[in-house]
Amino acid sequence: MVGVSLKAIKSNPQKRIKTPNGDVLHVLKKSDEDFIRFGEIYFSWIEKGSIKAWKKHNSMTMNLVVPCGKVKFVFFDENSHTYRKEEIGEDNYTRLTIPPGLWFGFKDMTNDKSLITNIADIEHDKNEVHRLDINEIKYDWSN
Amino acid sequence: MVGVSLKAIKSNPQKRIKTPNGDVLHVLKKSDEDFIRFGEIYFSWIEKGSIKAWKKHNSMTMNLVVPCGKVKFVFFDENSHTYRKEEIGEDNYTRLTIPPGLWFGFKDMTNDKSLITNIADIEHDKNEVHRLDINEIKYDWSN
Repeated sequence: MVGVSLKAIKSNPQKRIKTPNGDVLHVLKKSDEDFIRFGEIYFSWIEKGSIKAWKKHNSMTMNLVVPCGKVKFVFFDENSHTYRKEEIGEDNYTRLTIPPGLWFGFKDMTNDKSLITNIADIEHDKNEVHRLDINEIKYDWSN
Repeated sequence: MVGVSLKAIKSNPQKRIKTPNGDVLHVLKKSDEDFIRFGEIYFSWIEKGSIKAWKKHNSMTMNLVVPCGKVKFVFFDENSHTYRKEEIGEDNYTRLTIPPGLWFGFKDMTNDKSLITNIADIEHDKNEVHRLDINEIKYDWSN
């Protein structure tokens, strides 16, 4: 996987439209510059203070938003051995677009739990997902 | 709008996959029978006990899921003057597919608030949305 870089991760703040009985939050439109194609959408809960790490998609581009709570995502480029950290959630409502080829993990940063939404350009396919144990990529999750 | 019927609303229970640090919830895949095309995804919060009513889409097919909380949806067919009620949420995790041409409203059924996700087959277009005041379609929301 040559040429993938942490700089290829895009962060696009999304609109939160105030309405009297509950806000409306933009996520992703077909006409958005970063939209490739629709494959699947799914949710992942992450429990209070928990960490899920590490995964790498060989083919999937992910679009990640956190409508409930707050989540720290850590991305790792195995070629340059560099990291990138992004914290998103209700107070920093932003869509992250993640190209394939980067390792990632994430941690709940609340006293409750957080909800991650992934709008992916392909359907789930276990053959394109690689996994490592949390200790196989060094990272100080307390930061 | 002839031929639209409340029977055309589809309810498809979605998988909740138990995982140690937070469950994964299916929502919608390209290969799902009810998938038409991707236009836009957005979230709507609905505050504790609040009601948002009434709206009708002339073109949009909605796919609705409620990953947080519990929401009562009420659909009204103006041709037959009949209603259909669906209560979905964390404890009844189901995707509703709603064809265009039906009036709908919804109410939060929790002591907190609920999050609705709409995966729509077209992008938001104010010209295809019709609105009525809550009192313009009779419904006893206390039921």
